[in-house]
Amino acid sequence: MTAFRTCSAIAMLLAIHCAQAADAPVKASVADLIKASRPSDWRPLDPDNTLYMEIPGGRVVIEMAPAFAPNHVANIKALVRERYFDGLAIVRAQDNWVVQWGDPNETEPKPMKTAQRTLPGEFTVPLKNDRHFTRLPDRDGYAPQVGHSNGFPSARDPKSGRAWLTHCYGAVGVGRDNGSDSGGGAELYAVIGHAPRHLDRNITVVGRVVSGMPLLSTLPRGTAPMGFYDTPDKNVPIKAIRLAADVPQAERSKLEVMRTDSAAYQAVVEAQRNRGGPWNKVPAGYIELCNAPIPVREPAVRH
Amino acid sequence: MTAFRTCSAIAMLLAIHCAQAADAPVKASVADLIKASRPSDWRPLDPDNTLYMEIPGGRVVIEMAPAFAPNHVANIKALVRERYFDGLAIVRAQDNWVVQWGDPNETEPKPMKTAQRTLPGEFTVPLKNDRHFTRLPDRDGYAPQVGHSNGFPSARDPKSGRAWLTHCYGAVGVGRDNGSDSGGGAELYAVIGHAPRHLDRNITVVGRVVSGMPLLSTLPRGTAPMGFYDTPDKNVPIKAIRLAADVPQAERSKLEVMRTDSAAYQAVVEAQRNRGGPWNKVPAGYIELCNAPIPVREPAVRH
Repeated sequence: MTAFRTCSAIAMLLAIHCAQAADAPVKASVADLIKASRPSDWRPLDPDNTLYMEIPGGRVVIEMAPAFAPNHVANIKALVRERYFDGLAIVRAQDNWVVQWGDPNETEPKPMKTAQRTLPGEFTVPLKNDRHFTRLPDRDGYAPQVGHSNGFPSARDPKSGRAWLTHCYGAVGVGRDNGSDSGGGAELYAVIGHAPRHLDRNITVVGRVVSGMPLLSTLPRGTAPMGFYDTPDKNVPIKAIRLAADVPQAERSKLEVMRTDSAAYQAVVEAQRNRGGPWNKVPAGYIELCNAPIPVREPAVRH
Repeated sequence: MTAFRTCSAIAMLLAIHCAQAADAPVKASVADLIKASRPSDWRPLDPDNTLYMEIPGGRVVIEMAPAFAPNHVANIKALVRERYFDGLAIVRAQDNWVVQWGDPNETEPKPMKTAQRTLPGEFTVPLKNDRHFTRLPDRDGYAPQVGHSNGFPSARDPKSGRAWLTHCYGAVGVGRDNGSDSGGGAELYAVIGHAPRHLDRNITVVGRVVSGMPLLSTLPRGTAPMGFYDTPDKNVPIKAIRLAADVPQAERSKLEVMRTDSAAYQAVVEAQRNRGGPWNKVPAGYIELCNAPIPVREPAVRH
């Protein structure tokens, strides 16, 4: 049974070459392609647009995309630099939906110093803001075109001339009330379930979680309506949110993202679109935007 | 701030009528439609095809779809009735992917009495097996047609004459090794992340979790490859899996599912496809199969 389990553990649900017959054609898997990639296929996270959210379980790393939400990203940086989030909390975890964090104190909200409490929504931006779009050939139900913009899953509509970030797993957005201009970045959420793409263009998306998703996705679900925690003691405290650029080099997370405009990434997408290996029987022949993995890794130590 | 927070908690990210202007046209939300539905719009779970998995956190309720996997469902019922799963464990939790359960003992696998260890895969079935299909008009990238079959999200290909259950959030499938006939139902998994639709037609899907998903989705992620728990003490013990029909009435979960071939359900889907209310600014005009909610509720007590 060891062989079965070992084989199963490696091969089951993934296109990895377990018990590959010697004469079978080997098709590269996503893991193979990552291994074969060159250093130039990767870029480091931008420290000026990367947040470290420190919670009891560890660090959640969020990369922001200023091209898609310039005012909100600037405002979130102002909030972070005035230490607005430190001591606030994750107040909501709704299954197959989002976790959300911000100020749990409804009666005496934490004052802001330099940041704005609200901003006009940045639900979409002009196409020209997005200089790194690589289109997927696969059709999408929610948008005329979808693809990746410098590491972020995105969509665009050439007719309206607008582009936007999409609500894939790990997307980070700005909570708001009914008004389009009622959010500002002081309440943020991350998607922890099936992509709620119907939120696209209805809310400002500022970036995505690139590391630490399990720290959010495993949080106990709140039992009040919409997954809010029903008592304050259930809130998950935020020790601090810091901009990577403000953290000493030695304490930074060393992460890099595969360049989504590289040939290596196109190969990764194709390996997922038509998975090879002996486990897969029917290739999908299609990839849905939020099923395209965006590889993130710790860079190899260079001597 | 209370009003803001109360309003926000109700309205944010959901099309519920918070601070609705008196003269604004009111469009029914999913919650409204569920409230307005008639008893005949719902069906009880079928006790002969419903499993209760009892784990330390509580009960996970799985409804099986024998129309789509007749041999596997029969075999799982045999396994359950010989108490095969009792004392086994959840051995794997991979973020944005699956949790999986079965026999953690690789060297001395638990013997089976009446059940089969493996069966030929039932990845797809003839169209005629599926007598309740209601097609969504929305196009899908992974299949020529998608919709719902008696409460299960499903797909079909009229050309090949085959139908299959799809890997939406909560789908329960049969782990297997490389061979199509290497699974039998003794190792099962549930989807806890974005729908891995590329697994469709590659594995036998037997049903879906209708209650208790948070008990699975919040499990600590395993740190061994593919999310397996790295040491046996991290496995999550399964107290028992029982068929609802074998459990005394008083101990059964009283749940009913909205009939997916009802007009009420079509209205629910439309309310999600084009969400109304003051929060939503841009209706999607589209619904992706795994974003269509399939309402499950405890029936009202009848006097």
